[in-house]
Amino acid sequence: MIIAYTVKEVREQVKAWRKEGLTVGLVPTMGYLHEGHASLMRKAVEQNDRVVTSVFLNPTQFGPTEDLESYPRDFDQDCRLCESIGVSMVFHPEPEEMYAPDFCTWVNMDVLTGTLCGKSRPTHFRGVCTVVSKLFNIVTPDRAYFGQKDAQQLAVIRRMVRDLNMDIEIVGCPIVREADGLAKSSRNTYLNKEERKAALILSQSIALGQQMVQDGEKSAAAVKAAMTEKINSEPLARIDYVEIVDGLSMQPVETIKEPTLAAIAVYIGKTRLIDNFII
Amino acid sequence: MIIAYTVKEVREQVKAWRKEGLTVGLVPTMGYLHEGHASLMRKAVEQNDRVVTSVFLNPTQFGPTEDLESYPRDFDQDCRLCESIGVSMVFHPEPEEMYAPDFCTWVNMDVLTGTLCGKSRPTHFRGVCTVVSKLFNIVTPDRAYFGQKDAQQLAVIRRMVRDLNMDIEIVGCPIVREADGLAKSSRNTYLNKEERKAALILSQSIALGQQMVQDGEKSAAAVKAAMTEKINSEPLARIDYVEIVDGLSMQPVETIKEPTLAAIAVYIGKTRLIDNFII
Repeated sequence: MIIAYTVKEVREQVKAWRKEGLTVGLVPTMGYLHEGHASLMRKAVEQNDRVVTSVFLNPTQFGPTEDLESYPRDFDQDCRLCESIGVSMVFHPEPEEMYAPDFCTWVNMDVLTGTLCGKSRPTHFRGVCTVVSKLFNIVTPDRAYFGQKDAQQLAVIRRMVRDLNMDIEIVGCPIVREADGLAKSSRNTYLNKEERKAALILSQSIALGQQMVQDGEKSAAAVKAAMTEKINSEPLARIDYVEIVDGLSMQPVETIKEPTLAAIAVYIGKTRLIDNFII
Repeated sequence: MIIAYTVKEVREQVKAWRKEGLTVGLVPTMGYLHEGHASLMRKAVEQNDRVVTSVFLNPTQFGPTEDLESYPRDFDQDCRLCESIGVSMVFHPEPEEMYAPDFCTWVNMDVLTGTLCGKSRPTHFRGVCTVVSKLFNIVTPDRAYFGQKDAQQLAVIRRMVRDLNMDIEIVGCPIVREADGLAKSSRNTYLNKEERKAALILSQSIALGQQMVQDGEKSAAAVKAAMTEKINSEPLARIDYVEIVDGLSMQPVETIKEPTLAAIAVYIGKTRLIDNFII
C-alpha cells in the first residue's frame, strides 16, 4: 500500500493507473477510522480496481469553537485497517499541502445547508464542499463513497456533483452501528462510561421514529414530538436538533413521504452526536 | 466540426479523444466572437490535438440590471469562425442544460473579487468561477485559454485552479486591439459612431499610463491621477474605476513594481468598457 503525502504523488500514481485502464474509487475520511469507514472501503475495493482513502482532518469544516484540536487521531492504526481491506493508496496531506496561506476559493451551497447540521455549524458545509472538490480534482475518482450517517453531507455532495457537472458516481453506504445500536463515530471515543450508556438514547429515538413511520404515521410533527420526548427522557442528553426534512432539499416537511430524512443531533455531555433514518 | 448542445455529447466525444491519447484545449466564450477570441482559439489549436470552444451566454455572471438580454449574439457566424480556425467542437448549451431549476452550488472567492470589476459587479465572479468550474468538469481540458483583457478574471481563474487543485494549465493571451487602439470586445457593437470615437479614450489612457511607467514613474497615485484626468477630458466618458493593483492579489498598491496591473472600466454612454496593462 502506498502512503502519499503530496498532491503530486497522488496525481502521478492515479495517472499511471489510468494508463493501465484501471478504475479508481475514493473514500474521503478525517481518520481515526472505524467500522463505518471500513464498510465504505470494502465497498470501494469491491467496485473499483484501485482505491484511494484520504485521511485528512480538514480544518475548514470545523467552526472556531469546535473540536478540531481534540479530534482523535491514530494514523498508524488507520493505515493498518486500510491495508487489511485492500486499499491501494492512503493520501495523508498536511494542512499546508491542501491550503496555501492565501487560499481563498470556496465551493458553497445556498440551499440544503441552512437546516440541520448546517444551521448549527454555519461554515461546516462550505468546508466540506471545498475539501471534497479538491480531493475529487486531485484523485479524479470514478466513484466516491460516503456514509449515510452524515445524511445531509451525502445530500449536499450529491447536489454539488450534479450542479458542477463532476463526472463521479457518489455511492452512499448504510450506517454501521455498535452491537447496542449506537451509530459508529470517531467522536464516540470522547464519551465516558456513563455518557456512552446515555448515548443510546440517539439510536433508541431513531428506532422509535422509524417504528412510528412503519406503523403508518404520516405526521412529521407527531414523529418529531415522540422522538424529542424520548431524547429528553435522558438527563445527560441535550438536543441540538430533531428534524424531519425532504430527502433532497433538506427543507422541513409536514407530511412524511419518500424520500424523507429524519435526523437528530444531540449533545451527550460535551460530545455532539448525530443519527438519522431515511424513509 | 462538431456542434454539441448537451453535456453528454461533449463528455462522450472528449472520452473518445482521450482513448486515442489526444490532448484537449478549451476556449470558454460567451459568443459573438471577435479577433480576441480568434487569437485564443489559434493558440489553442497550436498547442492541443483537439480544441473545444464553448459558446454560452452565462446568465449567472450578469447582475439584474446588466446587459444579458441585449448582449449581441450570432451563433452561425461564431461557428464559421471556429471552423475556419480548426476548432474541433463547439459546445453551445441552453441555459437549462447548465442550470437545473434548483441549482444551488457556487464556486466563489473571498478575496481578489472585492476590487475592480468585482466591486462594480458583486455577483459577477461568482458566476464566472461557477460556470468555468462546470465547463472544466464537462470538457476536462489539458489547457484553457483566457484573454488578458479580462485581467481580473484571468487572475481569479488562476487562483481558483490553484486553490481547488484543478489539473489544468491556464494560458493567458494578450489583448487584441482595433487598428486605432480600442480593445476588441463584443460590447463594442453597442457603440454609435460618436461613442466609438470617444471610446478611444480608454486605450489612450492606457498608453499614457504605460508610458509613464516606462519612463520610470513608481507612484501609483501619480499614474492613476494622469489616467483619470485623461479619461475625464472626454465628455462622453464616465469612469467606473481607474485602479492600480497587485497582479496576484488584486489589492491596490502605492508603489508600482512587478507584477502590477493597471485597470480601467469606463462607461461610454451606456456601454461599459474595460482595458488594462500589466507591469
